[in-house]
Amino acid sequence: MNIAAPSFPSLQLDGALLVAQLRKLGELGADPDVGGRTRIALTDDERAGRDLLVKWMRELDLDVRIDRIGNIFGTLRAESDDGSQRPLMMGSHIDTVKNAGALDGCYGVLAGLAVVRAFRQAGVKPQRSITIGAFTNEEGIRYQPDMMGSLVYAGGLSLDTALNTIGIDGTRLGDELARIGYAGDLEPGAIMPHEYLELHIEQGPILEAENIRIGVVESLQGISWQQITVQGNANHAGTTPTHLRHDAGWVAAAVATFLRELAVTTGTTLATIGMLSIEPNVINVIPRKAVFTVDLRDPDEQRLQDAERRLADFLIEVAEKEGVRITSERLVRFEPVVFDAELADTIEASAERMGFTHRRMTSGAGHDAQMIARIAPAAMIFVPSRGGISHNPREHTDDDQLVNGANLLLDVVLRRLSAN
Amino acid sequence: MNIAAPSFPSLQLDGALLVAQLRKLGELGADPDVGGRTRIALTDDERAGRDLLVKWMRELDLDVRIDRIGNIFGTLRAESDDGSQRPLMMGSHIDTVKNAGALDGCYGVLAGLAVVRAFRQAGVKPQRSITIGAFTNEEGIRYQPDMMGSLVYAGGLSLDTALNTIGIDGTRLGDELARIGYAGDLEPGAIMPHEYLELHIEQGPILEAENIRIGVVESLQGISWQQITVQGNANHAGTTPTHLRHDAGWVAAAVATFLRELAVTTGTTLATIGMLSIEPNVINVIPRKAVFTVDLRDPDEQRLQDAERRLADFLIEVAEKEGVRITSERLVRFEPVVFDAELADTIEASAERMGFTHRRMTSGAGHDAQMIARIAPAAMIFVPSRGGISHNPREHTDDDQLVNGANLLLDVVLRRLSAN
Repeated sequence: MNIAAPSFPSLQLDGALLVAQLRKLGELGADPDVGGRTRIALTDDERAGRDLLVKWMRELDLDVRIDRIGNIFGTLRAESDDGSQRPLMMGSHIDTVKNAGALDGCYGVLAGLAVVRAFRQAGVKPQRSITIGAFTNEEGIRYQPDMMGSLVYAGGLSLDTALNTIGIDGTRLGDELARIGYAGDLEPGAIMPHEYLELHIEQGPILEAENIRIGVVESLQGISWQQITVQGNANHAGTTPTHLRHDAGWVAAAVATFLRELAVTTGTTLATIGMLSIEPNVINVIPRKAVFTVDLRDPDEQRLQDAERRLADFLIEVAEKEGVRITSERLVRFEPVVFDAELADTIEASAERMGFTHRRMTSGAGHDAQMIARIAPAAMIFVPSRGGISHNPREHTDDDQLVNGANLLLDVVLRRLSAN
Repeated sequence: MNIAAPSFPSLQLDGALLVAQLRKLGELGADPDVGGRTRIALTDDERAGRDLLVKWMRELDLDVRIDRIGNIFGTLRAESDDGSQRPLMMGSHIDTVKNAGALDGCYGVLAGLAVVRAFRQAGVKPQRSITIGAFTNEEGIRYQPDMMGSLVYAGGLSLDTALNTIGIDGTRLGDELARIGYAGDLEPGAIMPHEYLELHIEQGPILEAENIRIGVVESLQGISWQQITVQGNANHAGTTPTHLRHDAGWVAAAVATFLRELAVTTGTTLATIGMLSIEPNVINVIPRKAVFTVDLRDPDEQRLQDAERRLADFLIEVAEKEGVRITSERLVRFEPVVFDAELADTIEASAERMGFTHRRMTSGAGHDAQMIARIAPAAMIFVPSRGGISHNPREHTDDDQLVNGANLLLDVVLRRLSAN
């Protein structure tokens, strides 16, 4: 499966080893009953993933550093690097959602290692140092916001705030980070990337549907996360006439209906209610309280703001109509990101030269690259996801597509190293 | 507050003691933080309630018997009773929902005790034995179906099936009944009522809204409970276009919207989604699964069947449209009940003679009386519920209204004892 990077024939990417490492890392946190694996940030299973990654970095004789938010960096030094050089960075994350696939995040990290391995195996040093980064808590399952490690790294969230984050299980992030042994001493942001490349599975259906091998990701949707709380009145389901109800559960359903309509009519906005709970959650009691999250995304900031405003207006209207109180808390808000045009051009040119079908596209998901884009030129490369499925045990990309993506990454890296 | 039952001036109901006992029983399982009390069937807190009730029955020197489903009976024997007489029975239940008021069920049981106490304090025996019954698991919170003790008693559910019921906490009802010491040896149904009267708070807003003291309950709504499971596809919230989603949470919301529309258009059908959970319940993952309950009620059997059929049709339609699988499990189904006309006439006549405003009405909630109506003439008396609120710590009926209701019950009992 090894395909020589066409312009640097001496460097060979070991695709089989990359695939084997993805499988090996994917065994950690595996759930044989439900399927998939669960390595939520800073749990014991995620520590095992970190330990394995660090072991593999050390096997490549990389300089391994951990920063104070737990981001892991492994650097292959250039001869010319006196320690002050800005490295070419590749990276992503190795934490997962519940019952995840094996590729989301891990692919970008391990493909970066595969690129470095190609240098090691050829016995050549890069013209510029190369750093592989694995950022803490990209998924945001246990601690919010998501993409936290790269956000702190880029200066968008203070280290103290991040360390003091309380998780959904009541734990403090800083305590858990120390508990698993990954509270490092490097200051976040100390290793400033010259450029940043993130290879990732698409996690969406577009490349597969269009039978395209490579996505040249030139932008990324804006993300708006809110938690909405509806306070109604608990009452007996059999004796309370419909017009006298203050049903918090029904209001949540009305919001879901409004959001579906909004998504369908705009065409570009995506809206999801991913978390929902009602109280007292009893079969014959009208729900007193509903708490749910709203995930809104749009590649255009103005349209995203429109969606937020329309939702806010609807909440006021439905609260008035149903006689309930509604409060809304902003959890996460990221504007759309436009990636570096020169990097996107290089990716496109490499794909073209290597004979991979390709298209420009927007990332629907959030990625660490959007944070690093605040401090360095950044871009992403996508490979197809079967059925567009991700965050699911059935997440899948064919091995040859994974290896193609890594070979493309190697080619882009070689071109960027030559270019500057 | 003692008001003589007008036609039998020698019998005096001790209203103050009734109110005091309601308060005392209401302290068991009290939750000082959230408010209200929680005595879910066959828990330790409910056992404490049973122990207190049995103590109070014994203080009145009643013959206390526990049957095999845990129903508690206290009998004041008539002189003429050789043990084979069918007693006049009054009763209800003392189990509660989560964070309940102090009156639902308890009022009917303790008012029955107050009637018996009036006989004891006057030193007279009734012409026919009087039995006070407290039926097991009326609320159906932990074990389904609700009204289980009276249902078994009336022969509508086999004792074995009831005892083998597995609760939402995984426990077996028969084990829990034995654990709390209320697995009695009396066969359910062994004490066959001659007639059955159940005094209850309305748990609805009608009496208060119309400023009426007494509800003469001549019928009871049919009840249909289902659990519906929607199986969709978990997928990434940011990358999955709306038209490619199979969002189980959204389908649940669509069902809620359909049911609200159904309730509003029929005018008589009530529809409630009281329980709802989604999986994986993660902010940026489209829900793979939704499980929720539907509570449908209508005083008319045909209209209730119409509602069930329309819901079933909608489920087929939305499953097809959204590409999800939907299964539905019937949990409980009771047809509407028409109570005994002669008993209702007596209640109405007593209210009229005692100067209480009154109206005929349908019960919106299910009650043990509907089960006992299968084996004996039965009827119910309602007193107002402030704001129509029940199944809630704010459930309230003024003390004088509670005492009025009990005095009316005493009057009705005396009239029924004289009548036959």
